[in-house]
Amino acid sequence: MAELPRQTTRPRVVIVGAGFAGLRAALGLAHLPVDVTVVDRSNHHTFQPLLYQVALAVLSPADIAQPIRSILRKQANTQVLMDEVVAIDTPSRRVSLRSGAQLAYDYLVLATGATHSYFGKDEWAPLAPGLKTIEDATEIRRQVLLAFELAERQMVEQGSHPPLNFVVIGGGPTGVELAGAISDIAQLYMRHDFRHIDPSKSRVMLLEGSPRVLAAYPPDLSAKAEAALTRLGVEVHTKTQVTGIGPGWVEAAGSRIDAIVTLWAAGVQASPLGKLLGATLDRRGCVPVDRTLNPAGLPNIFVLGDLAHFEQNGHQVPGVAQPAMQMGDHVARIIAADLKGAQRPAFRYFDKGDMATIGRMAAVAKVEWPFKAHMSGFPAWITWLTVHIFFLIGFRNRLSVFAAWIWNYLTFTRGARLITGDQRLPGWPTQPAADPAADARQKERVL
Amino acid sequence: MAELPRQTTRPRVVIVGAGFAGLRAALGLAHLPVDVTVVDRSNHHTFQPLLYQVALAVLSPADIAQPIRSILRKQANTQVLMDEVVAIDTPSRRVSLRSGAQLAYDYLVLATGATHSYFGKDEWAPLAPGLKTIEDATEIRRQVLLAFELAERQMVEQGSHPPLNFVVIGGGPTGVELAGAISDIAQLYMRHDFRHIDPSKSRVMLLEGSPRVLAAYPPDLSAKAEAALTRLGVEVHTKTQVTGIGPGWVEAAGSRIDAIVTLWAAGVQASPLGKLLGATLDRRGCVPVDRTLNPAGLPNIFVLGDLAHFEQNGHQVPGVAQPAMQMGDHVARIIAADLKGAQRPAFRYFDKGDMATIGRMAAVAKVEWPFKAHMSGFPAWITWLTVHIFFLIGFRNRLSVFAAWIWNYLTFTRGARLITGDQRLPGWPTQPAADPAADARQKERVL
Repeated sequence: MAELPRQTTRPRVVIVGAGFAGLRAALGLAHLPVDVTVVDRSNHHTFQPLLYQVALAVLSPADIAQPIRSILRKQANTQVLMDEVVAIDTPSRRVSLRSGAQLAYDYLVLATGATHSYFGKDEWAPLAPGLKTIEDATEIRRQVLLAFELAERQMVEQGSHPPLNFVVIGGGPTGVELAGAISDIAQLYMRHDFRHIDPSKSRVMLLEGSPRVLAAYPPDLSAKAEAALTRLGVEVHTKTQVTGIGPGWVEAAGSRIDAIVTLWAAGVQASPLGKLLGATLDRRGCVPVDRTLNPAGLPNIFVLGDLAHFEQNGHQVPGVAQPAMQMGDHVARIIAADLKGAQRPAFRYFDKGDMATIGRMAAVAKVEWPFKAHMSGFPAWITWLTVHIFFLIGFRNRLSVFAAWIWNYLTFTRGARLITGDQRLPGWPTQPAADPAADARQKERVL
Repeated sequence: MAELPRQTTRPRVVIVGAGFAGLRAALGLAHLPVDVTVVDRSNHHTFQPLLYQVALAVLSPADIAQPIRSILRKQANTQVLMDEVVAIDTPSRRVSLRSGAQLAYDYLVLATGATHSYFGKDEWAPLAPGLKTIEDATEIRRQVLLAFELAERQMVEQGSHPPLNFVVIGGGPTGVELAGAISDIAQLYMRHDFRHIDPSKSRVMLLEGSPRVLAAYPPDLSAKAEAALTRLGVEVHTKTQVTGIGPGWVEAAGSRIDAIVTLWAAGVQASPLGKLLGATLDRRGCVPVDRTLNPAGLPNIFVLGDLAHFEQNGHQVPGVAQPAMQMGDHVARIIAADLKGAQRPAFRYFDKGDMATIGRMAAVAKVEWPFKAHMSGFPAWITWLTVHIFFLIGFRNRLSVFAAWIWNYLTFTRGARLITGDQRLPGWPTQPAADPAADARQKERVL
């Protein structure tokens, strides 16, 4: 065989996005005669199921994020680019990157996931951060920890502080996990740390528009989750639509709630990359794909993970880690079949179940495999812990994450309780109490 | 004894700054009948000797920083305020905080340390970050890691990239540690990660104005350090004054050096708190103190650590961790003596020695105790490692830090190699090469 430059003889696979779907696709192509380019805006893959633990100061960012380059360093047929796709030219099979370069592809794998949706109210974004990236997680951590510090400071200064109300909007798995974890922090972990405020008097409110939390789960598990949240002290308000968010308040069910910190876990929408394809999208921006994960009429383009709308048994496969990983694996199998001239296998989601944690010791799990069961409470939590530790496979941090958890569990201390960045809080009243007499007294007050 | 509010009967000690000096003073007062308030701008104590390891992605911020509140949570006579002192009223014995509150004191302990000094060229600060805080460390990490990513991206786009020159200004311990660690990253840790650039072709330059690096050490150790740096591939330029810094370049010894990343380790100045005292300051802003660590005429105010100018045997005690800790311990002893009506003990710095690391396996150490010796190379590095692990006492992370080091050492991987924040680099040429023909070719180039 003549020596030609490798990229002209081997099919070029461009994978956009190195989340669960894209990374598994790249890993699955390791030993095939293809040239793989992974493009991601960020330099790291994030283990999203544990992101809320960074947001609530249990784990450090590096515990759940790893450079994409490191994961793929030994895979000789693969290169990694920290860049962003800004255009897709399907007829000429090229993508344009933000930096100006173009990449030609024989196969294009789109796996850029989903982001927050504020339902058109983008002005809510700075007031109520969501949780999708490491930066989001450290911003939430900063706001939650800072609220207690500012309250302590104001107690010293004025003898009073605004109510420590934490409002979580959205009762899906992320909202439930955040609400439970904030309650844990306030009730358990902070209890000996302050001299002037009582963190256990914080209120955590979970607002959900639909009739129940974890609406995608069976009703009995929703009820269990709500009961567990209530036991933790979380005030669960279902059928409660949020109609406004401002600095220091949330408007819901016709009244204003004071909110020192507001977190957004209510809506997601697919990454805008679907639009670049020119395909018809569903209402959340997902790209409908067929049994071989292709959008209509584009057999050399695959759409995976949260960006894909794949239906099975009449239901859309959910936007969680399991289907994303399976789709990534499957794309590698399809490309292998193409290379052998074999028929493409159809994708089928193998549902092992779903689970969500509620605070430090409880969870709910809908188990589908190896047996069918609904679990809740401590057994579900142990299951959750075990599964997540095993899914951290490939992460060097597995043991250190486990050690951090155990330590945290035994000692009620938080591992990564750093406030970094600036010290303003969007929900904090910038003006002191408007009583001028009180103001005058405060100025005189000496401790 | 009548029941009076506690703060009116017990002496009030206000400690400003929770670095080594302030924290040790607070801990030393745990069992005395005093009320202690610790004020710090940040919520965490930082183990500064390992800060450069965060900057160079070996350790995570949480490995070397711990909330001040957590450290002091069980000390019932102590409260912690995240705030900043903006005025000191010595006649009425009050400090004013940025938030507006005032604190009355019977004893005031000032231990706010030092910060970077750009010798009046404050416009250099955004171009050449220094290393004093966790935020500084993650900014340096971001810049160093991003430089390699941008170079790889530009190779794909244009087939060339600007030279990967890292310039470290200042040959003291911090500059030596940073230069050695960047060289390690480029030569060892990055070598399998990129497909288009060769990180080992990076250049690391250390610029020092005086005739030798580690000018505070004995000349033989300076020579050993310079030789070790050279072996690591660092280009050491002594007697080289920096006269200008711009985006992408450093001007020194009459010529311009291209610099993708420029780091500042050249000058420190004391925190501005000394000025608030109205005392005479030395040229770096330090407050001269007597044998009981008091500024002239202020026996109930103590100045410690890097903020203090304390002379012993005709030399100023250096601004490093050991004297800071010893001064903190000593202030607690002085206050205890006052409470008993005993004579105040004079402070004497017990010098155990100094050490600085150079990359992954070398160090220099001037040992003063338990024996006198000059050490270098691997034995000095092992000594450095041992001492620092033991000085992390009180940190829950001691074992995990040790585990991270060992892992790092054995596998050549970096633990915390995250790029967070934005993706601009001050030293990166924002314009592509100015050749229009090359530009046109690049646009056509498809990989």
